[in-house]
Amino acid sequence: MTMPASGRLYGLGTGPGDPELLTLKAARILDSVDVVAHFAKRGAPGNARRTVAARLRPQAIELPLIYPVTTELPRHSAGYRTQIEEFYAASAAAVAAHLDAGRSVAVLSEGDPLFYGSYMHLHVRLAPHYPTEVVPGVTGMSACWSMAGTPVAQGDDVLMVLPGMLDEPELRRRLASAEAVVIMKVGRNLPRIRAALAATGRLDGAIYVERGSMDAAAVLPLAARDDAPAPYFSIVLVPGWAGA
Amino acid sequence: MTMPASGRLYGLGTGPGDPELLTLKAARILDSVDVVAHFAKRGAPGNARRTVAARLRPQAIELPLIYPVTTELPRHSAGYRTQIEEFYAASAAAVAAHLDAGRSVAVLSEGDPLFYGSYMHLHVRLAPHYPTEVVPGVTGMSACWSMAGTPVAQGDDVLMVLPGMLDEPELRRRLASAEAVVIMKVGRNLPRIRAALAATGRLDGAIYVERGSMDAAAVLPLAARDDAPAPYFSIVLVPGWAGA
Ligand SMILES: C[S@@+](CC[C@H](N)C(=O)[O-])C[C@H]1O[C@@H](n2cnc3c(N)ncnc32)[C@H](O)[C@@H]1O
Ligand SMILES: C[S@@+](CC[C@H](N)C(=O)[O-])C[C@H]1O[C@@H](n2cnc3c(N)ncnc32)[C@H](O)[C@@H]1O
Repeated sequence: MTMPASGRLYGLGTGPGDPELLTLKAARILDSVDVVAHFAKRGAPGNARRTVAARLRPQAIELPLIYPVTTELPRHSAGYRTQIEEFYAASAAAVAAHLDAGRSVAVLSEGDPLFYGSYMHLHVRLAPHYPTEVVPGVTGMSACWSMAGTPVAQGDDVLMVLPGMLDEPELRRRLASAEAVVIMKVGRNLPRIRAALAATGRLDGAIYVERGSMDAAAVLPLAARDDAPAPYFSIVLVPGWAGA
Repeated sequence: MTMPASGRLYGLGTGPGDPELLTLKAARILDSVDVVAHFAKRGAPGNARRTVAARLRPQAIELPLIYPVTTELPRHSAGYRTQIEEFYAASAAAVAAHLDAGRSVAVLSEGDPLFYGSYMHLHVRLAPHYPTEVVPGVTGMSACWSMAGTPVAQGDDVLMVLPGMLDEPELRRRLASAEAVVIMKVGRNLPRIRAALAATGRLDGAIYVERGSMDAAAVLPLAARDDAPAPYFSIVLVPGWAGA
């Protein structure tokens, strides 16, 4: 019995949400790949899946990777970590089964796969064993500053990307060492982010962007945004350059 | 006499160099735009122009914006600033003349237009006066970490983008406040960048990437790269995440 040559793994960046912001390369790969895997919460298709929905071939096998429900567990607890690790290991095994059978697999990834993306948990497990290619994508932050029309960093500016779940002293400390700042994962962290920006004198220039490049996108000064939790796709921009 | 409606301005991200990493949206706009403007050094077509060369329509009017030769002037001198400002003002005027005549203009921009790009100097001058749209692109850094297959930032990691021309104490100071670091504009700054990384104990994990996604691309540990000046398209990555 001969083994089939193993299939190729693609970490496929699908861009920030507008289906037209897919790259030509990602579109070509979607047109030929055997299996399309995507991370999702139970009951809701993932956003990367939604972005490419109109391009999915009927012949493609879909492999949804459903996150475990961990909302009751604190994010740094051992229980949380164990569940998440088991999930990534099981997901990698599910993808590997297709690769072993000779089928190519694209793992869809919002924005750019290796920039704060779940794909990297599969990448580190699979890339050492299978032919693998990462297809970069347009990030959510690029979509947001493009929509806002805000030059973010130029020349000598340092740009810092901060995850919004850092605690307030940590946010303040980091804010002190960059001209331009992008704060990701805003959601319920909005009041704390606002407080840290106000305390460091940077609230005035800050811009809030919601659903960059998607339907019902919004751009407004952060100072004009209330403290209600932000949606998953939201970002805060602190431009470093006022320029000319 | 009636004035034509003014044309639309596009800041058009052309991605990191591989023509297939253009977005579908950028490709569509290139297929219809009247004027294609691009920054270039005298005698050399700009890289964004090269990336889309095969897609340029013969009917499109080309508007090269040729940087003044300022190599003899120190970068922070008044003479340098004056020349560069005059250049951006003249470039904006040249683009405006087409817009006023009712022609749409795409200003090509390597990677993402508002991320350390020259386009923003036109944007701040023209966007207040003309209908303007920025089309985000895949950045050079995304192409580089995708080629290297290196997850760069995850979870709570802070990612910092540093321009390589900062002086060494400044580089060292900034390096201390981020888990993940991308150093752009490596070129002749390579020895200083290496020294700053060594001094902060971060040389070991650092990766050097040259011409990410282009022909003759290269990825190697920074420690294995000699100190000869790097090409314009080169970057240093310091991953923040070793993870699983
Ligand atoms: C887990 S990270 C994934 C980032 C993604 N890999 C990228 O390249 O943009 C998710 C966070 O990215 C930001 N984000 C991604 N796309 C966005 C969009 N279209 N509009 C606003 N924020 C976005 C939000 O802050 C969100 O909480
Ligand atoms: C003036 S900045 C322009 C950045 C661009 N707007 C972007 O989004 O990537 C030029 C610097 O970007 C980096 N860069 C851009 N594209 C690259 C590529 N394909 N490979 C390596 N470095 C790249 C290099 O460090 C270069 O010196």
